[in-house]
Amino acid sequence: MYRFLSIIGIFLAMVTASSAQELSSPNGNLKLQFALQANGEPTYSLTYKGKTIIMPSRLGFELKNDKQSLLSGFEVAGSQVSAFDETWEPVWGEVKSIRNHYKELAVTLNQKESDRQMVIRFRLYNDGLGFRYEFPTQKNLTYFVIKDEKTQFAMAGDHTAFWIPGDYDTQEYDFTTSRLSEIRGLMARSITDNVSQTSFSPTGVQTSLMLKSADGLYINLHEAALLDYPAMHLNLDDKKLVFESWLTPDARGDKGYMQAPRSTPWRTVLVSDKAIDILASKVTYNLNEPNKIKDVSWVKPVKYIGVWWEMITGKSSWAYTDDFPTVQLGVTDYSKAKPNGKHGATTANVKKYIDFAALHGFDAVLVEGWNVGWEDWFGHTKDYVFDFLTPYPDFNLPELRDYAKAKGVKLMMHHETSSSVRNYERHLDKAYQFMKDNGYDAVKSGYVGDILPRGENHYSQWLINHYQYALEKAADYKIMVNAHEAVRPTGIARTYPNLIGNESARGTEYQSFGGSKPNHVTILPFTRLIGGPMDYTPGIFEMDLSKLNPDNKSHVNSTLANQLALYVTLYSPLQMAADLPENYNRFLDAFQFIKDVALDWDDSRYLEAEPGEYVTVARKAKGTGQWFLGSVGGTNARTSTLKFDFLDKGKTYIATIYSDAKDAHYKTNPQAYTIQKVLVSSKSKFSQHVAPGGGFAISFEDATKTSSKGLKKL
Amino acid sequence: MYRFLSIIGIFLAMVTASSAQELSSPNGNLKLQFALQANGEPTYSLTYKGKTIIMPSRLGFELKNDKQSLLSGFEVAGSQVSAFDETWEPVWGEVKSIRNHYKELAVTLNQKESDRQMVIRFRLYNDGLGFRYEFPTQKNLTYFVIKDEKTQFAMAGDHTAFWIPGDYDTQEYDFTTSRLSEIRGLMARSITDNVSQTSFSPTGVQTSLMLKSADGLYINLHEAALLDYPAMHLNLDDKKLVFESWLTPDARGDKGYMQAPRSTPWRTVLVSDKAIDILASKVTYNLNEPNKIKDVSWVKPVKYIGVWWEMITGKSSWAYTDDFPTVQLGVTDYSKAKPNGKHGATTANVKKYIDFAALHGFDAVLVEGWNVGWEDWFGHTKDYVFDFLTPYPDFNLPELRDYAKAKGVKLMMHHETSSSVRNYERHLDKAYQFMKDNGYDAVKSGYVGDILPRGENHYSQWLINHYQYALEKAADYKIMVNAHEAVRPTGIARTYPNLIGNESARGTEYQSFGGSKPNHVTILPFTRLIGGPMDYTPGIFEMDLSKLNPDNKSHVNSTLANQLALYVTLYSPLQMAADLPENYNRFLDAFQFIKDVALDWDDSRYLEAEPGEYVTVARKAKGTGQWFLGSVGGTNARTSTLKFDFLDKGKTYIATIYSDAKDAHYKTNPQAYTIQKVLVSSKSKFSQHVAPGGGFAISFEDATKTSSKGLKKL
Repeated sequence: MYRFLSIIGIFLAMVTASSAQELSSPNGNLKLQFALQANGEPTYSLTYKGKTIIMPSRLGFELKNDKQSLLSGFEVAGSQVSAFDETWEPVWGEVKSIRNHYKELAVTLNQKESDRQMVIRFRLYNDGLGFRYEFPTQKNLTYFVIKDEKTQFAMAGDHTAFWIPGDYDTQEYDFTTSRLSEIRGLMARSITDNVSQTSFSPTGVQTSLMLKSADGLYINLHEAALLDYPAMHLNLDDKKLVFESWLTPDARGDKGYMQAPRSTPWRTVLVSDKAIDILASKVTYNLNEPNKIKDVSWVKPVKYIGVWWEMITGKSSWAYTDDFPTVQLGVTDYSKAKPNGKHGATTANVKKYIDFAALHGFDAVLVEGWNVGWEDWFGHTKDYVFDFLTPYPDFNLPELRDYAKAKGVKLMMHHETSSSVRNYERHLDKAYQFMKDNGYDAVKSGYVGDILPRGENHYSQWLINHYQYALEKAADYKIMVNAHEAVRPTGIARTYPNLIGNESARGTEYQSFGGSKPNHVTILPFTRLIGGPMDYTPGIFEMDLSKLNPDNKSHVNSTLANQLALYVTLYSPLQMAADLPENYNRFLDAFQFIKDVALDWDDSRYLEAEPGEYVTVARKAKGTGQWFLGSVGGTNARTSTLKFDFLDKGKTYIATIYSDAKDAHYKTNPQAYTIQKVLVSSKSKFSQHVAPGGGFAISFEDATKTSSKGLKKL
Repeated sequence: MYRFLSIIGIFLAMVTASSAQELSSPNGNLKLQFALQANGEPTYSLTYKGKTIIMPSRLGFELKNDKQSLLSGFEVAGSQVSAFDETWEPVWGEVKSIRNHYKELAVTLNQKESDRQMVIRFRLYNDGLGFRYEFPTQKNLTYFVIKDEKTQFAMAGDHTAFWIPGDYDTQEYDFTTSRLSEIRGLMARSITDNVSQTSFSPTGVQTSLMLKSADGLYINLHEAALLDYPAMHLNLDDKKLVFESWLTPDARGDKGYMQAPRSTPWRTVLVSDKAIDILASKVTYNLNEPNKIKDVSWVKPVKYIGVWWEMITGKSSWAYTDDFPTVQLGVTDYSKAKPNGKHGATTANVKKYIDFAALHGFDAVLVEGWNVGWEDWFGHTKDYVFDFLTPYPDFNLPELRDYAKAKGVKLMMHHETSSSVRNYERHLDKAYQFMKDNGYDAVKSGYVGDILPRGENHYSQWLINHYQYALEKAADYKIMVNAHEAVRPTGIARTYPNLIGNESARGTEYQSFGGSKPNHVTILPFTRLIGGPMDYTPGIFEMDLSKLNPDNKSHVNSTLANQLALYVTLYSPLQMAADLPENYNRFLDAFQFIKDVALDWDDSRYLEAEPGEYVTVARKAKGTGQWFLGSVGGTNARTSTLKFDFLDKGKTYIATIYSDAKDAHYKTNPQAYTIQKVLVSSKSKFSQHVAPGGGFAISFEDATKTSSKGLKKL
């Protein structure tokens, strides 16, 4: 499954004491300069095709209980330049193989007065820079506490940014598009309510942060391989237009607890003059360690439905009863409780979903609200909130387990932790074993609400360590993980490919909580998806949610065709068809695309993209050679003009095109779509209207394999 | 094993709206008055034989995020008086059966304005009061955060107190004896260095707090059944001489997280005009729930030796090597490390201990420093500090396991957590299973250093919950627990008798860290031992520690005879003979007492006691009818005059008396002891010189069962 295709490492070692060093990317477009200032402060800068991307920017740390921080007084003790070129195969992904090709500069710094060493390692790819700090084993720096990481990213202009407010506890915000200088003025209105949120600065934003310069350069700031270290936000000095790293603190305000030898995560700067290069970049994965799971035969892409949207919309409930104002597990007697009549995870209802999944070829059915404790699960920082083992009286697990198995469908586990992390860890082994005993091989975990231990944050080091612990333990049990409300991914799925999904951004659920901006899905690929796949849960066909729940006045700000396109534009090996079976039954012709679309790919070609405006990508399904194309638009109508030159030359394909009807509109007419079939080839040119909040999806079938009688040629 | 002998519960239910209530103890000596003040503030007071013990004192709570705290505005909604009388058998203990006899007053209070209910339940025993707050299920008070518990204990005079500084992280202080009014002036010098300590007030002290009034009343303030609630300290208003409860806060300064229905721990006031009644009181156990472990056949008293004192004194080391300034488990390669030559837990050394244990009939051998990680285990708030599974290269566990088994000796496990509590919980199942797989059935756990999660304290609710979690999980594995640096016990061993020991006070180890006060052991029974047994680790025969380690200038402030007496005066079902085998081999005649002394008792008679001065107790061994007597003195010499009227009438015993020689002195001549055998009966009167820091121990054998030729009659 996973293997290196080739490794070519050319080591060009040099030891030098020069205080300024330059490094070029393999194609020479990116140039990095490292320099020590007169006071021994390390700095770096970056250019792309001669244009400044990062102006000279400080590197270093403030330490706790330390008179002399790791900021200045350094001298270069040595440096090493090398090159690396390997090609590796991901277990799942957008492409069959990934080239990891970079030049590297490792500068060893010595802080003379304190006799402390720090290595700064830069890796320069054709499409970006990664750098990290390394603390080798040494006498005077072993255990230390990072008060602040002071890494700067000095911007060369007042760029347009696609940002969400910096926050220690949530990423579930709509994106704001503005100049850097406008962030401060827009911050207050950008911070919408969330059940757990902690903002820290009027100019604080989150990564991955997408930027566009006035002269058309696309720049992305993020991090890779975030392991046992607090997540990095960025705080903007909006006078100087300098971003500085802002680590997530713990309950005492401390940031990172370190023990040498240790490295920080990589700080990344993706750069291109083409937006599609940002989307296609593999820098984030490449900066992570290779796969550590020996046997990955059990890691498989999953297409699923779930007893979920009906709860999200308020049509049904997670809770079983309204009898209990409060629940104490092991004390509260559910056997005597009166069912509330709205419980979603009943045996009968789950069977309905299993039937639907089996009929339409889905791999799995997620069931939320199956286990006791939902009556008062939220908002109380309740310690023993769930046991992850005990079903509600109306959820017959053995019966459903056998029923699903007979139908060839998997049940997908749900572990809502209510952010009571100690409680989850205490139950983790038993909960995972329970899954294996009952045929579950994937879990959606959730971290809703304020964290326990109280005072910790969703993105502080304590939690980063926890998410990884849960992930690695899941791997021991051969369980795939889809963690919601956890920290946004940073390419860790390369190392632990059982991390098949994350939420960690504003997902479809917000369409039921008042709606998201119609262009939201054109920004996610440039931001949230830089670190790994998102369980966005697309596929909503009924946009008027009052039809599901009269009390829900929300409207899904998307056309139906846009929803289809998301299965291609938002890459994930885990894809949900989130709407209710009854809504799919009303539009089975459109639903066919969700049934057909692949989850794993041999190739992906980003055809056109502009953050906030549109994303169009064609992907070749793994093994089958079948192509799919998705295109999503933003707030305004547009016309997409494409060449199909990605198709195999000389072949004829039947293209089934699912698109917005002419009068479609995300708000007023979202369900107006057309489906047409045409014959196409690699020479075909294609033009397609995209409605406001719209999109289109195409599946390409080999015309020789099926009847194409009467179809027009494009 | 464990059973109720009888239960007589006479319920005298009355519903009344009177705002003042009185309750008498079964014998009428103690009288409790409950009253509501004009503003609806609940108060209580307590008298003993007509003398005021607690002057009218406030009851209630300040809540977080709550405008109206639970302090006033109450009215009495009802009250219930009842009586209870049962006799139960502890799994292990000082006596065969315990009478639980009290009168109870439960006052239901309604805070009218907020419509919130709180029950205050008082239980009045002949030897003390227990009361707690209960929060029944109700509409307006379900989840709440206690900002402060405001329970007061208004003293009737400027009593003499035997106190240690209030501290969130350690109880390992020498006691200071002073008037209440003198506490403030003596606080600074009472706070001696500890590796983790957090004091909170210049008049803050810990419980169990022993007090003596000018008119000779003995009063003890403590708590019982501390479960999932922060430990209570006492803060003194030294103008008014009023103690107020001071709960241990979490990282955010919050105290208790509550979910109704819930109760607080019991607040206890033991009272008598005889000091020995305080020592004999079973109020603390009685206020705990009955045993919850169904099969207790595996819970057994343990007499043990250990590879420990040699590390404590610095003769040997926990660490295996000096090669590593820092260790990363799973990364650091011990196989290539050079042993430091001082490692205590070597296979050969442990075998020496096993041989000694087998030769002298000890049950078990504790081995510390057996597992990897000790090179940098302490002081770094290191997360992954131990794995509790991996032995050092020179500790051959299978070999030692088989060797011990063949010799009929158990190995005792050691789990030092370095206070990295998450890490311990993550490993707990595997660590306990590892014990069972290797024949260990008892663990000494340790919590040295600052707590992780950082910001939490040793005695905050988070940790109280943890200690209980570790204890209950141990019970699942049939493992006995002896937790060091954990919270001081509050009688929980009644409910979980696998808690066979705790440290939670200044133990013998401090004799190696500069020494403890010679009268320390005369105060411990009145304070630390009120809540349960202490693993004090007595039995030091070599007081000059430079003989073990030339660099250790400490002197053990105790005579050898005093050390023997501790096996009787400091009741514990877990007793260590802490010194090295070679030191015992030098004094085998005295060592005989340690070999002989029982661990479990059918009866205990406190013969004389005065905190800070002396404690003398006779105990009858479980099942055998054999009596043992121990007496410890304080700083000054004294003469103990006793009657042996506890002995079976008409029987003649051979008393072997281990006592201080005339010229013995804890400082100058600690090893001067005499051993004499005499014939005694229940009519014998006995007078014995006790040296400064001295004591004596007596074993009584049935004279008909052994030769008593030539013995004098007393």
